[in-house]
Amino acid sequence: MSDVEAVYRHPVRVYWEDTDAGGVVFYGNYLKFFERARTEWLRTLGIGQQRLRDETGTVFIVTETRLRYLAPARLDDLLDVTVAPQNHSRATMTLRQQAWRAPADAQTPALLLCDGDIRIACVDVATFRPRRIPDAVFALLTSPR
Amino acid sequence: MSDVEAVYRHPVRVYWEDTDAGGVVFYGNYLKFFERARTEWLRTLGIGQQRLRDETGTVFIVTETRLRYLAPARLDDLLDVTVAPQNHSRATMTLRQQAWRAPADAQTPALLLCDGDIRIACVDVATFRPRRIPDAVFALLTSPR
Amino acid sequence: MSDVEAVYRHPVRVYWEDTDAGGVVFYGNYLKFFERARTEWLRTLGIGQQRLRDETGTVFIVTETRLRYLAPARLDDLLDVTVAPQNHSRATMTLRQQAWRAPADAQTPALLLCDGDIRIACVDVATFRPRRIPDAVFALLTSPR
Amino acid sequence: MSDVEAVYRHPVRVYWEDTDAGGVVFYGNYLKFFERARTEWLRTLGIGQQRLRDETGTVFIVTETRLRYLAPARLDDLLDVTVAPQNHSRATMTLRQQAWRAPADAQTPALLLCDGDIRIACVDVATFRPRRIPDAVFALLTSPR
Repeated sequence: MSDVEAVYRHPVRVYWEDTDAGGVVFYGNYLKFFERARTEWLRTLGIGQQRLRDETGTVFIVTETRLRYLAPARLDDLLDVTVAPQNHSRATMTLRQQAWRAPADAQTPALLLCDGDIRIACVDVATFRPRRIPDAVFALLTSPR
Repeated sequence: MSDVEAVYRHPVRVYWEDTDAGGVVFYGNYLKFFERARTEWLRTLGIGQQRLRDETGTVFIVTETRLRYLAPARLDDLLDVTVAPQNHSRATMTLRQQAWRAPADAQTPALLLCDGDIRIACVDVATFRPRRIPDAVFALLTSPR
Repeated sequence: MSDVEAVYRHPVRVYWEDTDAGGVVFYGNYLKFFERARTEWLRTLGIGQQRLRDETGTVFIVTETRLRYLAPARLDDLLDVTVAPQNHSRATMTLRQQAWRAPADAQTPALLLCDGDIRIACVDVATFRPRRIPDAVFALLTSPR
Repeated sequence: MSDVEAVYRHPVRVYWEDTDAGGVVFYGNYLKFFERARTEWLRTLGIGQQRLRDETGTVFIVTETRLRYLAPARLDDLLDVTVAPQNHSRATMTLRQQAWRAPADAQTPALLLCDGDIRIACVDVATFRPRRIPDAVFALLTSPR
């Protein structure tokens, strides 16, 4: 697994709700899996989105998504969803995210299912106008681990 | 079709997003189909939910749902979703709702797929405390058609 | 309320995907949360639904759901979703399921948000006709823990 | 922006199920709206996806999506979702799709909310291996209107 830059991994189990009549995960749902992983990654940095909203009146929104679907996931699969920050400005950030199928045993390699680039912007919660990422949050995002 | 009390019918097409790996509509999605039909029924009465919220600070919430699943719907099916008000108080209402598969031709009868009872309450948008349905809205809900 | 009969508890975090414009979890999504908890409970008993389908040609489907919504959940809340089997026949089972908001600290009690009764039936995967629960699965479901 | 190449327009109403706690449509749901419009466009060409699957053993899957989010949609908004084929091979096609907010009155221009590029491939329903688009379907896709 060569996505060495991943700073966070979040496990996602595939349930009935995630699948479609093709017998596989509905492609739109990878955006949900990526969102869950980003949220938990932010939480490990000490950034809670509800608190961010209440205390600073700002919210992170998604402004662009680019996803490539490489192989299907199925019911009961256990996925490993990664987060790799690519770059920041004072108001935006870009993340590389991937969903891998966890290997069933030690002989099976993990399989990359979906690969994405997600662009996030900080905006005012009422007007959706761009805002600088609050200083304390920016410091948490950019501090060396 | 013996649900003579239905006052509103809303067509719902089944798309990939609605199905699951069983090849049929995911049972949880009938709550969405019923919600769409209720919303359009309210709109025909002149009740817009966003406006209700903005102008009166109240919102209708669902407090109880009881659904019976009788037959599955599949991709590309066209459903007929009905609304039949059962009773009102000054703060709540109960609706009977059903999803039927529209007949493919004149010889095929419609088939009842899902049958539900939905209880709605009017609440304050900020506190979620019970509120009387605003008079103008109550008049629209209870006026003879 | 004492939910003493719960045999399984599954944690569910509330993400953006789960909420609606009312600022709270969309009521239809509790059916998803309950499904996740049931799936994990079955897995702890040694019952995998994909394997059940592949090996016996049967699948569990939901035939009736009754949910009462008592209090709203919000973004970032951590829920505790429970499973309590109520009764079995050779082809069906009924489960009581609840979603609680986990207490923020030792002084706060857990709060019951949603309370449900879910009826499940075993059916043939192709015809959706009722089938006896396979013997090995029935034994796992009914064995004392 | 002139979306002159759109060959199909599909109306989508925004319901509670589509929104999130930000008060706007959850960004992941535009993939659903685009899917609905593509499905109805295929249907107008005489291509039913369930029938395609049953008769040829092939299915169209989404292999890449790129979406740009320009402005938010809200509860009760009526969207106009467009389909514009960009190019075809014998096994894939690329579509440009957009979601516009329908103007509230004659003075208000339509507003572009989301702009996307969707890449589709024809695959074998069992193996997910690439397949040529069946001749009859390819003819329908490429015939002048």
